[in-house]
Amino acid sequence: MPRTEAASTMAPPRHSYHSEPTEIESLVAAVDARICLFLQTESDRVRRQDPRLVEPIEAIRAMSSAGGKRIRPMFCFAGFLAAELTAPQDELVNAGVALELLHICALVHDDIMDASSERRGSPSAHVQFGTQHQKRRWHGSSEHFGTSAAILVGDLALIYSDRFMPRRGALDDIWFRLRADLVLGQYMDVRATAENIADVRLARWVAVAKSGEYSICYPLLLGATLGGKPELAPLFQGYGIAVGEAFQLRDDLIDVFGDSRIAGKTLGQDLRQGKMGLLLTLGAQRAPEIQDMIGHPDPEVGAAQARVALRESGAVDEVEGLISDLVARGCASVDGAPISARWKQWMHTMAHDVAYRRT
Amino acid sequence: MPRTEAASTMAPPRHSYHSEPTEIESLVAAVDARICLFLQTESDRVRRQDPRLVEPIEAIRAMSSAGGKRIRPMFCFAGFLAAELTAPQDELVNAGVALELLHICALVHDDIMDASSERRGSPSAHVQFGTQHQKRRWHGSSEHFGTSAAILVGDLALIYSDRFMPRRGALDDIWFRLRADLVLGQYMDVRATAENIADVRLARWVAVAKSGEYSICYPLLLGATLGGKPELAPLFQGYGIAVGEAFQLRDDLIDVFGDSRIAGKTLGQDLRQGKMGLLLTLGAQRAPEIQDMIGHPDPEVGAAQARVALRESGAVDEVEGLISDLVARGCASVDGAPISARWKQWMHTMAHDVAYRRT
Repeated sequence: MPRTEAASTMAPPRHSYHSEPTEIESLVAAVDARICLFLQTESDRVRRQDPRLVEPIEAIRAMSSAGGKRIRPMFCFAGFLAAELTAPQDELVNAGVALELLHICALVHDDIMDASSERRGSPSAHVQFGTQHQKRRWHGSSEHFGTSAAILVGDLALIYSDRFMPRRGALDDIWFRLRADLVLGQYMDVRATAENIADVRLARWVAVAKSGEYSICYPLLLGATLGGKPELAPLFQGYGIAVGEAFQLRDDLIDVFGDSRIAGKTLGQDLRQGKMGLLLTLGAQRAPEIQDMIGHPDPEVGAAQARVALRESGAVDEVEGLISDLVARGCASVDGAPISARWKQWMHTMAHDVAYRRT
Repeated sequence: MPRTEAASTMAPPRHSYHSEPTEIESLVAAVDARICLFLQTESDRVRRQDPRLVEPIEAIRAMSSAGGKRIRPMFCFAGFLAAELTAPQDELVNAGVALELLHICALVHDDIMDASSERRGSPSAHVQFGTQHQKRRWHGSSEHFGTSAAILVGDLALIYSDRFMPRRGALDDIWFRLRADLVLGQYMDVRATAENIADVRLARWVAVAKSGEYSICYPLLLGATLGGKPELAPLFQGYGIAVGEAFQLRDDLIDVFGDSRIAGKTLGQDLRQGKMGLLLTLGAQRAPEIQDMIGHPDPEVGAAQARVALRESGAVDEVEGLISDLVARGCASVDGAPISARWKQWMHTMAHDVAYRRT
């Protein structure tokens, strides 16, 4: 029988991101403090030159302090701590800062590409700069100014990010692949949407590149490598790729069925733009009329129809089933690992947290 | 008497970029070969995943092989060689690769912001991807797809660039400031254009950040630091900032008076967009009606009027005079330096080359 309730209500009791061990909590707090201090120092430096130069730095600061789950730094710290290493706190925090600033770059640039107007409960960067332009009645197109400024904000966040990642052999390789594959995954996403490709294999690869590897697998590997235990790589890879795909599949469900007031970001983009993630790809295979609903002249009508059809076709159930399998597979891959029961428990909890979150 | 001939004919006999000592020539050739090999390896790697992933890499390759003057690697090599150091060729070439790939990022992203349709004699990246989209009748806006793809091409070039720069203490600091100031300089440029600020001090600072430091001063410092002679910094700073500003002022003149067939890129952008570089700022101070010409309903008519007014007001002469002073000042700052006569000569020649080039 097809489900009719909101996808998010299917989730098991929600675990809190605050269930993590105190070490991770305090490292995350140190990341936030260091980002704040760094941006303050940069602002002070450039303000002496011209107060307007502070604006792109301020945009990064606002994004950072507006929230965000800090998932990538958390997995990086877990990768280190699970290996039972004593933290050279400074390097570890720097790696967390690098991951978080890189994520700000990805969000700012993605929001331009997806024409998303909201992020972390505020207008997205290109919208903020565009609005500023309009309010002050500056010359030229406000939209174009917003896009230009946001491209530069993202570039700056990418450059700042790079300033923090500790550099040496194996770390360098992981950091490089993490970033290059993030960009290539996003290109494939944009490209497949334009071409309207509905291909299960491709949709799953994009999810792995953009989320599995970028958000979970590589951060874990960075942590283990920082601690000099790269031998944990295969274990973390198994966990990261499975749980990361679950993370992305939940993202797809939230985009279609979620509440943007809770998510704090623009939702419904996949239906509006015909972005063929796994959910829509499976839906279109099971019920080809979903493709017409996505292209409906009135996007709101089309989206409402598609939501019903996605449920009735069984595509939602199939994705929920896959999420459940992926979480189980991810958890199984840490069970036999040479890490303590406490960290196994943490990784289980996190797998459920990211796979069944609502934002 | 105001000048009436094309600005470029005022230049002294043009020096060739091929007058550089053989060491630099062969290092530049090594940079090109290494970029080519790296992009080939990356393409091969991602092609196995999906042949479409090659497209953004191919865009970088096409930009790299379409020309460009390789000014930044050349100054980096000169900074090293002038210190009479024996080249650890591998590191030096990597630094050149990093500078050149960063420049591709800057060009691709700048072309989006300036809505420039041509670069290095070919359609600019966002135009190429947009045209592809249109030809293949893909979904959504071709222009938006072009912009999205070009943002990602630039991001990828920035990440690739970073892969090559050798990392250690002082080098790290220079590489960081070079990139952050490039982005902040570009932000100020975009911002001042939108706000229509005509301010000599600001125009000169933007020129220094975007060209003087980025193109000449920092590359020289990178070279000297790679060779372990950071004590050459003040000398190179004096030369780099002066000659770099001359480089940017020539850019302004080329944009207004140059021939886009020779330049291989879209010209006339400053007048069309009211970008208040030093030339237009001085022009507007001397002849306020130039501001109206820039805002003329027919941009071609306005540009033709502005070209005449810029000459007649004496603004062109003032900029030419400033270029000449800057070149002299730059050359003087190397004359007393502890480097060989041969390298002093090279730096003199290069100062004239960049200040009196036509493209």
